[in-house]
Amino acid sequence: MKSLLAEVNISEGRDLDLVEKVKAALLEKEDVRVIDLDSDKDHNRTVFTYIGEPEAILESTKRLAAKAVELIDMTKHEGSHPRMGAVDVVPFIPVKNVTNEEAVEIAKDFGKFLGKLGVPVYYYEDAATRPERKNLVKIRKGQYEALEEKMKKEEWEPDEGPHAFVPKSGATVTGVRFPLVAFNVNLRTDDIEIGKKIVKAIRGAKGGYKNVRSIALRLEEKNMIQVSMNLVNYEETPIPRVLETIRSEARRYGVIIAGAELIGPVPLMALEEVLKHYLQVHDFSMEQIYY
Amino acid sequence: MKSLLAEVNISEGRDLDLVEKVKAALLEKEDVRVIDLDSDKDHNRTVFTYIGEPEAILESTKRLAAKAVELIDMTKHEGSHPRMGAVDVVPFIPVKNVTNEEAVEIAKDFGKFLGKLGVPVYYYEDAATRPERKNLVKIRKGQYEALEEKMKKEEWEPDEGPHAFVPKSGATVTGVRFPLVAFNVNLRTDDIEIGKKIVKAIRGAKGGYKNVRSIALRLEEKNMIQVSMNLVNYEETPIPRVLETIRSEARRYGVIIAGAELIGPVPLMALEEVLKHYLQVHDFSMEQIYY
Repeated sequence: MKSLLAEVNISEGRDLDLVEKVKAALLEKEDVRVIDLDSDKDHNRTVFTYIGEPEAILESTKRLAAKAVELIDMTKHEGSHPRMGAVDVVPFIPVKNVTNEEAVEIAKDFGKFLGKLGVPVYYYEDAATRPERKNLVKIRKGQYEALEEKMKKEEWEPDEGPHAFVPKSGATVTGVRFPLVAFNVNLRTDDIEIGKKIVKAIRGAKGGYKNVRSIALRLEEKNMIQVSMNLVNYEETPIPRVLETIRSEARRYGVIIAGAELIGPVPLMALEEVLKHYLQVHDFSMEQIYY
Repeated sequence: MKSLLAEVNISEGRDLDLVEKVKAALLEKEDVRVIDLDSDKDHNRTVFTYIGEPEAILESTKRLAAKAVELIDMTKHEGSHPRMGAVDVVPFIPVKNVTNEEAVEIAKDFGKFLGKLGVPVYYYEDAATRPERKNLVKIRKGQYEALEEKMKKEEWEPDEGPHAFVPKSGATVTGVRFPLVAFNVNLRTDDIEIGKKIVKAIRGAKGGYKNVRSIALRLEEKNMIQVSMNLVNYEETPIPRVLETIRSEARRYGVIIAGAELIGPVPLMALEEVLKHYLQVHDFSMEQIYY
């Protein structure tokens, strides 16, 4: 069986009636399984995460997006999370028996659909058409408010849809990326400087692991410091390697790990290295797992 | 979705044409997923392991068993593994959203079916009708060869089927048990005495963990000692607790763990404590995992 994940970010997290209507459009036909649905009032943003056969994911994502584009008016949007469109970002994530190429085809089919609906579309990550469009942060720089000026430049001509600013919908970014693992480690200290030193040791940008994005946070209630991470490629940079590096760096300062958190959906395959590392089962195959 | 596992042990592991016919009967109709199929020539035994919705498992197990009873003649059976019937042992194992009570109903429906086919049936483990029938080893004591005399005693009247020895089929044991985890730990030593001391420390029968069955073996090729285990209840006695006890006991003798093996099918839920223990993710829910 093939399995593709979609993680659709729409710019509405306060009007839950609207979110319900978008969800109803998502679930109208095909057999997809919603594994997470998170509306955030501060961000004014909802993330739909669902999984299924690639064709079912494509068709249900089209319905979801059409409904969101119909109901959301970006000219009135306020929220603390960076955004540039009603349907803001739509990564497709290969989970099982789906190649990156197949997922890129799905993303481009979806992009063409949105373009025909009149929404400017940019392809990012593994679907990017230019190197400077790989990174979401670069595409979204300046956010919705900067989009009108930005789109006048040749370098920000959209990949699909109208070559002009559309106030109501803004623009959408879609593409293909590896499954993220959101992993936080809580340290038995209230010294943020120790947290910052550890972050410096592990994050790719600072000489650490290529696929680790990380910041240090203060957890006021727990009186602890958290190393908050996105692991963007658990194959190249497995969870236990990062955890043990944090443990080792923390030890330099006499600090131990109080606990950790895996946040939101976690791909089963990201657990392979956890088992192999800690149980020392060198020849274990994930095919042995049943559920 | 409900998910029930069946692990059917039949007394034929040499005639692979016969095994193919039995497999074809299993797969004739319902939607079951074979996760392991192992024929052993020395044991002269085949184990079918498959998973699916409870009703599909019941119906396909009936077909498999009827075909095995038709084709296997126990009067001619030889093999090194203990056995007493053509269809020897059939545990049903609840995996997901199936209660023990539901699984016992399935086992009893299957037992009645085999009884009507003319096979004497004993219920064991969680389907046992008498305390002395909980344990497979006790029911099977003396094996096929002792069955004729044994069945003359009131205490070994079968739970279903004819109250008399049936030479061709022998008798079948069926019931419900918790998923097993077969886990072996290899020690960087060739001293079997150290292995035996560790086994004594961990196995339930000797004051160790209630749900650990274990022996120490010599691995000639690797020049190591193996602590070979069946963990019969990973909820009560989780894998990491057992592994860390072995590590600690081995350390007393200056011995470290070279590697470990999870053998055959492993239930996803058995990995929950592995993640919680080693990643320290105290609040993790297995519902977060997608595949």
